[in-house]
Amino acid sequence: MPLSDRILLGPGPSNPYPEVAQAFARPLLGHLDPEFLALLDDTCERLRRVFRTSNELTLPISGTGSAGMEAAFVNVVAPGDTVVVGVNGVFGERMCDVAARCGAEVVRVDAPWGRPLDPGAVLAAHPSPKVIAVVHAETSTGVRTDIEELGRGKGDALLLVDTVTSLGGIPVEVDAWGIDIAYSATQKCLGVPPGLAPLTVSERARERFVERSQSWYLDLRLISDYVSADAGRRYHHTAPTAMVAALHAGLGHVLDEGLEQAWARHAACGEALQAGFEKLGFRLLAADGHRLPQLTSVGLPEGVDEAVVRGALLDDFGIEVGGGLGAWAGTSWRIGCMGHGARRRNVTLLLAAVGELLGR
Amino acid sequence: MPLSDRILLGPGPSNPYPEVAQAFARPLLGHLDPEFLALLDDTCERLRRVFRTSNELTLPISGTGSAGMEAAFVNVVAPGDTVVVGVNGVFGERMCDVAARCGAEVVRVDAPWGRPLDPGAVLAAHPSPKVIAVVHAETSTGVRTDIEELGRGKGDALLLVDTVTSLGGIPVEVDAWGIDIAYSATQKCLGVPPGLAPLTVSERARERFVERSQSWYLDLRLISDYVSADAGRRYHHTAPTAMVAALHAGLGHVLDEGLEQAWARHAACGEALQAGFEKLGFRLLAADGHRLPQLTSVGLPEGVDEAVVRGALLDDFGIEVGGGLGAWAGTSWRIGCMGHGARRRNVTLLLAAVGELLGR
Repeated sequence: MPLSDRILLGPGPSNPYPEVAQAFARPLLGHLDPEFLALLDDTCERLRRVFRTSNELTLPISGTGSAGMEAAFVNVVAPGDTVVVGVNGVFGERMCDVAARCGAEVVRVDAPWGRPLDPGAVLAAHPSPKVIAVVHAETSTGVRTDIEELGRGKGDALLLVDTVTSLGGIPVEVDAWGIDIAYSATQKCLGVPPGLAPLTVSERARERFVERSQSWYLDLRLISDYVSADAGRRYHHTAPTAMVAALHAGLGHVLDEGLEQAWARHAACGEALQAGFEKLGFRLLAADGHRLPQLTSVGLPEGVDEAVVRGALLDDFGIEVGGGLGAWAGTSWRIGCMGHGARRRNVTLLLAAVGELLGR
Repeated sequence: MPLSDRILLGPGPSNPYPEVAQAFARPLLGHLDPEFLALLDDTCERLRRVFRTSNELTLPISGTGSAGMEAAFVNVVAPGDTVVVGVNGVFGERMCDVAARCGAEVVRVDAPWGRPLDPGAVLAAHPSPKVIAVVHAETSTGVRTDIEELGRGKGDALLLVDTVTSLGGIPVEVDAWGIDIAYSATQKCLGVPPGLAPLTVSERARERFVERSQSWYLDLRLISDYVSADAGRRYHHTAPTAMVAALHAGLGHVLDEGLEQAWARHAACGEALQAGFEKLGFRLLAADGHRLPQLTSVGLPEGVDEAVVRGALLDDFGIEVGGGLGAWAGTSWRIGCMGHGARRRNVTLLLAAVGELLGR
């Protein structure tokens, strides 16, 4: 097997922070070892700081970001419940699918790809939904949707937000914005390999949990009995201890740097990257004013074969960028500057490499 | 945070094979990188060899062993389906719970803790179940149940088998025994940290998949479109690339050693361990003739406080063993010699350490 050293500038995973390699090298702990439980507690506390929440139920789900999405829905949605879903990309579509599999009446509110959701339209879609669900940062398009107005206007509904690509990269304010359930993933702006889904749930949402989740594995009543020391560490499943140690280390990097400083670093990289790609003749596909700095969708210049150039970036430079999805497949790229990848040297290198390949 | 170096002789996780540390140290790959896809393909091929199957649908599920259990059920069980479940420990109980959450009519067939299931009783429990589900190696008791007779007598039913603690430690013959769905976990006899669930599904079972699984995350129709090159590598979720590399390395160790040699190593360790514990005045709780070598339940000698001695093993020797579950809690231990832990030096050390602590 070859052993390449990639610079990961696609939509995720990103290159992990160096502290993560150290964490993977530490001797493995059992899931009931007092040392591991202390590590887990501290991981949950670090997640609270990154999510900006005091929610007690804040923890890493033992699966990837999509398991976080499923955990978010299956614990609060019962058959027949109305769920309003904002859809402006692949992950909003996925929310509709997951909610439907819970038996929800899904009311979807669409916005065009590349545009943010209109919070007013989302709030007006139904008079009394049980859940309003939106994606904060659409990984398929690179668009940010404003969450605050949804929190102010949610009424009796639970506000469920996908922060997979936003957490650690741009401000996410779970408590201040009135978010009831947020989930994320480790492999984007937290700078940790894929495999865990940070999740936080408000007391208000916990009080409205379904009686018995259709998923045993993602049943937060059972999981919280293990994660919470107060509940007695009742065995549920074997926690993925190596991955939790990796997450702990990645979060340590983010918090040592400072969350605001990490946001500023992502912002600076995104700005330089987007300006540079425009100079190279690419089009920015996300609406101005709602562009994510950490995930940029670009339309390629006329006549350039995206797959050929993307392949050359990988083969000749060891740089991964992502192809577009859905209607944007074949004509666009998705470029991530996330976590440890959000560094000036990566922006400079990528722009120079693309320039060389295009002969500009 | 302290940084202890544990010898993991509980019911899992076990200490990983040294090759796993190397795999964790390799630079991270993206989930669509050709190098990763080759690694994933080879991981699936190695899993086929370890499961002894030619099933095309053989892959690691992106969650722990319990996610493997849930994936096994949610893809074949629809509301109203009859599922016969053999129950002789915690994990058979869990199967009943998971099947019930799929809406199954669960017919349970109990055997006492410490005893194997009676295949005849399981087969006689219902004339035409959709699924017959049993645990091959009960991690809560250390008992092996014979699978072959179930495969011969299953009729039209699908045979679903939990091989979490058996795979890599004792013979598991998916094709020869007529198993339709088997799942396992990485952190037992495969010598890899927890976080993935190897799974294999026969063509016969695939033909009987439910139309739409209640789980999006564990929907094997969608997952197989990514895992199978023939299906076009359609994106489902972001594969946990670091953990897959770790699994690949652990499986490499097992197959380089030889599966039969690995079984023999586990058998030799278990025999020495069980004889040694009897000499120390412990009782073996699993029925003679059905004892797992890799997972041993022992009742402590009269008057010995299990938690105190178990704590001393951890604090004074850095050795983890597990406490008993259920009715056996407080009076028993569960001792694993699994994967890289199944070595003579660990058996010798554990017996000597326990002897010292008990003053024998």
